[in-house]
Amino acid sequence: MRVMAGAVAPTPAEGKVLSAEEMAEGWRLACQSQVSADMSVELPASALIVAHRIQIEGIGQEVTVEPNVTKTALRLPTPSTEDPRDDLTRVLDALDDEVRPPSSVQALRDLPGVLRQSSFHVTAVVAGKTLMAVEPGDTGDAAYGVAIDIGTTTVVVYLCHLATGELVGVASELNPQAQFGEDVISRLQIAVSGAEGLARLHGAITQAIDRLIGRAAEEAGVAREHIYEIVIVGNTCMSHLLLGLHPVGLVRLPFVPAFKGAQTVRAAELGIRIHGDGQVYVVPNIGGYVGADTVGVILASELDEAKGLQVAVDIGTNGEIVVAQDGELWACSTAAGPAFEGAKISRGMRAATGAIDKVSIDGDVTYHVLGEVRPTGICGSGLVDAVAEMTRMGVVDKSGRLRSQEDVNGAPEKVRRRIVQNESGLEFVLAAGDESGSGRPIAITARDVREAQLAKGAIYAGVDLLLRSLGRRPEEVDRLLLAGAFGNYIRRESAVAIGLVPDLPAERIVSIGNAAGLGARLALCSISLRRRAEGIARRVRHVELSEEEGFYDRFAEAMALRPMPGPGEQE
Amino acid sequence: MRVMAGAVAPTPAEGKVLSAEEMAEGWRLACQSQVSADMSVELPASALIVAHRIQIEGIGQEVTVEPNVTKTALRLPTPSTEDPRDDLTRVLDALDDEVRPPSSVQALRDLPGVLRQSSFHVTAVVAGKTLMAVEPGDTGDAAYGVAIDIGTTTVVVYLCHLATGELVGVASELNPQAQFGEDVISRLQIAVSGAEGLARLHGAITQAIDRLIGRAAEEAGVAREHIYEIVIVGNTCMSHLLLGLHPVGLVRLPFVPAFKGAQTVRAAELGIRIHGDGQVYVVPNIGGYVGADTVGVILASELDEAKGLQVAVDIGTNGEIVVAQDGELWACSTAAGPAFEGAKISRGMRAATGAIDKVSIDGDVTYHVLGEVRPTGICGSGLVDAVAEMTRMGVVDKSGRLRSQEDVNGAPEKVRRRIVQNESGLEFVLAAGDESGSGRPIAITARDVREAQLAKGAIYAGVDLLLRSLGRRPEEVDRLLLAGAFGNYIRRESAVAIGLVPDLPAERIVSIGNAAGLGARLALCSISLRRRAEGIARRVRHVELSEEEGFYDRFAEAMALRPMPGPGEQE
Repeated sequence: MRVMAGAVAPTPAEGKVLSAEEMAEGWRLACQSQVSADMSVELPASALIVAHRIQIEGIGQEVTVEPNVTKTALRLPTPSTEDPRDDLTRVLDALDDEVRPPSSVQALRDLPGVLRQSSFHVTAVVAGKTLMAVEPGDTGDAAYGVAIDIGTTTVVVYLCHLATGELVGVASELNPQAQFGEDVISRLQIAVSGAEGLARLHGAITQAIDRLIGRAAEEAGVAREHIYEIVIVGNTCMSHLLLGLHPVGLVRLPFVPAFKGAQTVRAAELGIRIHGDGQVYVVPNIGGYVGADTVGVILASELDEAKGLQVAVDIGTNGEIVVAQDGELWACSTAAGPAFEGAKISRGMRAATGAIDKVSIDGDVTYHVLGEVRPTGICGSGLVDAVAEMTRMGVVDKSGRLRSQEDVNGAPEKVRRRIVQNESGLEFVLAAGDESGSGRPIAITARDVREAQLAKGAIYAGVDLLLRSLGRRPEEVDRLLLAGAFGNYIRRESAVAIGLVPDLPAERIVSIGNAAGLGARLALCSISLRRRAEGIARRVRHVELSEEEGFYDRFAEAMALRPMPGPGEQE
Repeated sequence: MRVMAGAVAPTPAEGKVLSAEEMAEGWRLACQSQVSADMSVELPASALIVAHRIQIEGIGQEVTVEPNVTKTALRLPTPSTEDPRDDLTRVLDALDDEVRPPSSVQALRDLPGVLRQSSFHVTAVVAGKTLMAVEPGDTGDAAYGVAIDIGTTTVVVYLCHLATGELVGVASELNPQAQFGEDVISRLQIAVSGAEGLARLHGAITQAIDRLIGRAAEEAGVAREHIYEIVIVGNTCMSHLLLGLHPVGLVRLPFVPAFKGAQTVRAAELGIRIHGDGQVYVVPNIGGYVGADTVGVILASELDEAKGLQVAVDIGTNGEIVVAQDGELWACSTAAGPAFEGAKISRGMRAATGAIDKVSIDGDVTYHVLGEVRPTGICGSGLVDAVAEMTRMGVVDKSGRLRSQEDVNGAPEKVRRRIVQNESGLEFVLAAGDESGSGRPIAITARDVREAQLAKGAIYAGVDLLLRSLGRRPEEVDRLLLAGAFGNYIRRESAVAIGLVPDLPAERIVSIGNAAGLGARLALCSISLRRRAEGIARRVRHVELSEEEGFYDRFAEAMALRPMPGPGEQE
């Protein structure tokens, strides 16, 4: 501490640690100072870091910040004939007993110079129980980490201040692997076709991560070398491609990943530029097609400790489903496809500026556009709304068939007129060419309705079968969580109306946003939660839907466009 | 095991591990087989590796081989719907509970391909408690390690078979750092003068090691990728230059190294090509100028457990001295200089073919030449012999002055005639030009005698002062160990005669060869001895001679060419 007003006489012990110059400036050891009168002191920045708690969105839980990487400012005694300890021992002696020497030779190479250029006033960076680096001066406050959610379609990077858990920057872009194949299966095919395919997919994602970290850090004014750790969630395929692992076991039954448990590798090994000895922690996967992103969802939603019967549905390019019953966990992956992320939909797009995200049909069609601009396409929540409203109006029948103008009864004339026939078939126009941002009309085609049915049918059948496998029924679900960007925008009424989720009262359906990314942030900022994530990955029972009896029957039934069983409507 | 004669019915458990084809070939699990009649079985090579004991030269101790790196051949069950474990878990489940996943992403990258190309019959390489690699087939027997002694003047590489401790190859060359400076001090000066100097010294030694490993491996028919670990001893300066550490703290009092404790780094980080994830273990140093090589000497000679008062002297470019008293250890380094390795001696050379290694003077000079060829120079043991005999003959007086022909009394005429005066002063010719391999005479100059005096004075003064510091005297030493190549060739009588070592009975003086290198081999082949070496480095008390009272007086006294105090001659 530095005495700003008042006085404390220096003790002999302080003479060993502080220079005469420092003592003249008022620096004292707080532990040695006896206070006899009013005084005013200043504490160095690093001493101000105490346990923080962060509030997290969605579920509203509060967690204690206890990052894996910590910094400690040290004012070390300078070497003397009486104290000729080597540089490394001098640093380690000042830290917790359990801290081990650095595993990289570079940290040792920097040490003698750093200690002497800063008069032995340095900051130790400790990752886990290992000394990662020693920096000149007091850099205690400059400690950052990155949480990453690698989606099949989108990659999101969250830059966090480790000591407070504060989110200081976000950057995202489309997963550049999409150029090699939109879905997981087609990328796996490329990866197993030869070393070059794997190298391209691996390079695409690691370079994207490096780029996104650079962008987030620059916007937040954070130096890359002050980022010490990366925590990553993604599905099993994404984590294999990230690490450059040959996914040979993932392309056929019984879907055997190369690894499942948590992995820690050097960021430099992946060509990702953070601190030179910074590391990448890959959150463990659950099984072949249920990955670390689902572990993130469970962690963020605390499903592993939830009471009663709860279901989480994470709708992305795949749909992952988790069922929790009094602390027991089951999970499966459905081949829902990326329809709700806009893929395979004729005018589909992600939930971004220009996307129609809400549709209602009354006397005529009204819609809402993200960013309040002219529409350029339709995103998942808009699609669900549109299909629900078109079904309610009789434009689409329960089987999913788009009716022609003549076949529609009861819908207002303005609505009927929106059904048009063009060379590729029937479609329902939401926005005419003169309303849209591109000049092209935005319409829902008969094929779009079919894609929405396939996606929602796969999800509903997954929920239903997972519940049946433990002797429960959809109408018994106490709480249903919708994760993913899609879950944030979707209207619960529409999701219920088309039978995407069980017909539950609105208060039992909760949107929790990007819970996978949130789980990654929690595992970054709390080592306890990281350990908890590892426990979750081991505990979740992985159900392979395609091997469950009756899956295809359920799937076929679930494609119907009507509310699926809920408490009010027993089958 | 494979049943060659007789029969054992397969059990259901074997059906899970072995294929039908293997069982047809007679493969069975030994643990499952009930023997009811005589039978003959064959064991796979890797099952034959049991605890070996190796006899080591010098001290004659026998140690149990228990290397840090072990290999285990595994016949893993292939994945099935009932057993969809991921590849890594499948391997780890078959190993000890404590084995951790690999720390390098490359090991994971290789895993899926290796398992499938070899039908899940693989060999796991475990270093410490970490899985290093998985290799196809049974490679259990192909496990090698390298022990290295980096001397200031010479680098020696020992290639060892890890499972048996057997030495399968040796390669050595002059330390190429010598081109930048013959002694430690001049190399340190270059290293601290700028990054380029350090990089050159670092590159010179790492490239030499890589070259020597290549040579030893090629001669032994061992593939580099079957070498998994390197254990290195050297003095503190050598280990800093090896790791590329700025030795800024070593160039001035209080001589503070960057590190002292054991370090483990990846061989690839040093540019040394062994297995891609192979590691380098640097044996811990004792202090600023007493390094890991001295730890190796203590380990090899078991001085840490020796009874009574024992002294070890390791004469290389520096002279390190260890005193052991009933398990307590003290060590110091002397600036003996490299005279006994042939440096600074006019016709000096290492103990190699062509070196005069023995000299006696009776009616005339007789000598022995290593390799039984014409002499090309003189090595350390020859120099000690020559000085001892020249002193006995009165050619040199007790103060070290080389007498002219006229001043010598009592020596035979043939001996007196060997004293010649040339432009640079007096010298004593051992071999005339027509006897030598080069045509130039081989002579001992007045300056050579002075160099020998400086070197032996420094060593004797070190022994004397170290003993005094614990209240003991040279004549009380129960056993004196001479380590280093020099110690192998030296005649004990001559060493006593010139006062290089105390005047002890011959049976108390023992040559133990290159004990530092032997210590490195022991730490390579036994993890217990490696832990013991770490304990030794912590326990030894490091004495800085130049700070001991009376050092320079002792040094001056010890330069006299006469036997130094021993049991028969109290001062």
